Amino acid sequence: MSHKIRVGIAGYGNLGRGVEMAIRQNPDMELTVIFSRRDPGEVTAGTKIAHISDRLQYKNEIDVLILCGGSATDLPEQGPELAELFHTVDSFDTHAKIPQYFADVDAAARKGGNVSLISTGWDPGLFSLNRLLAEAVLPEGKDYTFWGKGVSQGHSDAIRRVKGVKNGVQYTIPVEDAVNRVRRGENPELTTREKHLRECFVVAEEGADLAAIEHEIKNMPNYFSDYDTTVHFISEEELKKNHSTMPHGGMVLRSGKTGKNSTQLIEFGLKLDSNPEFTASVLVAYARAIYKLAQDGQVGAKTVFDIPFGYLSPKSAEQLRKELL
Amino acid sequence: MSHKIRVGIAGYGNLGRGVEMAIRQNPDMELTVIFSRRDPGEVTAGTKIAHISDRLQYKNEIDVLILCGGSATDLPEQGPELAELFHTVDSFDTHAKIPQYFADVDAAARKGGNVSLISTGWDPGLFSLNRLLAEAVLPEGKDYTFWGKGVSQGHSDAIRRVKGVKNGVQYTIPVEDAVNRVRRGENPELTTREKHLRECFVVAEEGADLAAIEHEIKNMPNYFSDYDTTVHFISEEELKKNHSTMPHGGMVLRSGKTGKNSTQLIEFGLKLDSNPEFTASVLVAYARAIYKLAQDGQVGAKTVFDIPFGYLSPKSAEQLRKELL
Repeated sequence: MSHKIRVGIAGYGNLGRGVEMAIRQNPDMELTVIFSRRDPGEVTAGTKIAHISDRLQYKNEIDVLILCGGSATDLPEQGPELAELFHTVDSFDTHAKIPQYFADVDAAARKGGNVSLISTGWDPGLFSLNRLLAEAVLPEGKDYTFWGKGVSQGHSDAIRRVKGVKNGVQYTIPVEDAVNRVRRGENPELTTREKHLRECFVVAEEGADLAAIEHEIKNMPNYFSDYDTTVHFISEEELKKNHSTMPHGGMVLRSGKTGKNSTQLIEFGLKLDSNPEFTASVLVAYARAIYKLAQDGQVGAKTVFDIPFGYLSPKSAEQLRKELL
Repeated sequence: MSHKIRVGIAGYGNLGRGVEMAIRQNPDMELTVIFSRRDPGEVTAGTKIAHISDRLQYKNEIDVLILCGGSATDLPEQGPELAELFHTVDSFDTHAKIPQYFADVDAAARKGGNVSLISTGWDPGLFSLNRLLAEAVLPEGKDYTFWGKGVSQGHSDAIRRVKGVKNGVQYTIPVEDAVNRVRRGENPELTTREKHLRECFVVAEEGADLAAIEHEIKNMPNYFSDYDTTVHFISEEELKKNHSTMPHGGMVLRSGKTGKNSTQLIEFGLKLDSNPEFTASVLVAYARAIYKLAQDGQVGAKTVFDIPFGYLSPKSAEQLRKELL
């Protein structure tokens, strides 16, 4: 490689900070610039921050741009817009909207002659890859995805919108018995309630009606009413001390039959101290792949399903065959 | 697809029989012929068996040929020979000889204008993919491969060569404490002895010196002397009843650090009732991928590192994005 892969970051929240740290762990990459909507004056030590409106100036200084905005409002707009200017990688995760988002990014990337990977991270991302692999290898079977134990940002936000709640954190927890039944090859039919528990740690405002808060959380449609939910009231200090990190994880399992009646189980699991840092590490590995795809002259939108794993590694094909096969 | 993918099998042992059964689980494929060195008169119900020397006659009737011979003597010869005539997939697993085997198959496949996937299955194969993925995502970390609990053919053969032994089966078993230390993120340095146990079930000949047999097994270099080995003497009936299947499995784990000091764990595991049937299922999924690669006009030798997962599935890219991403 004639030079390091020059990576840009668009968006500087938890994910963007995670990408910044992950790039430092990869000697074949360097961080060129971070685009942000905040005042470009706020410069992190050693990192250049530019306003997103100045992006055109960086067209020839960035090999791959990693989009770290949110899926609700940032990416639907920024994804196509930036894919026209740069080779990009993102973690768009609004599942129902992936086909539309893919089409929008694909059109923009082709217009600009770029290549863009959408929807990577761990789910969608590594979990999706394992669902595909397991289904292809064991066509007669059933797969299960369990999430957690981990903090769900969406559910924590939902708690915090309840009247009388000052702060709160929600953990999604797989039901151990359900996981064990799948591991034993029983291929059970599992309801939503049988798969996951929800555990809430809530800081109430002074004088709030705790029973009313608990009732409202437990009966909230979509978020909690289909689950066995427990609510613990704790102090703000306790929340800060014990619930301020963002652990997550989960597993994809598929149990299937082959031959006369052999049960075969494939399991992929993650146990993460930091959800955003891990997602960032996945984005950075796929930024390397997109760089190589761009060198090959590919254009348009791609997903993890289109990328050979060899492209994720800084090692040569010969080295990979020798060391890792 | 205008027609089903027409698959041939070369070699009709446990693996070949597994491939035959796996093809029946995939409606987009059909079995054309099984090449064997045995008398072509022996025909399995519904399957045409041909002598391997008649292979040229089938050149236009096979889209992909799955090679089911052994790595010690069959594949080094058959691999290149058949890759010149057919698109092929194999499970060559003599690790140290992979670079040479790749070069030989690559030259032959290019000469014939074919594409050949070497060394797939679960290790090498799915485990290799997970070692690569985990290393690319967590560059600062350490990975561990554990095998078992499962029957090792090579070690079972070694037992059976001991004087006074009539029959025997050997299980490779991961040391639970070692696995747990890795899962806790300790990144321990583990010796061979600390990673796996070896458990042997031995049927002795009448009047044989049991103490001598046990001593010879436990002290056999390369196979047993570096491990904690237990030897159980059992009857031929007990061996047939309880130890005649070929279970296996194992796991690839990588624990790494991201950000300031977050521990992140990636784990991939298999629990297999039948080792040859599972390997066969992986070969069949990769036969589909090789068929698609051939349609794309690709030639030469490939490994699992070169194949996008989307190629493994009978589903379209649109369907995969909608259903599995």
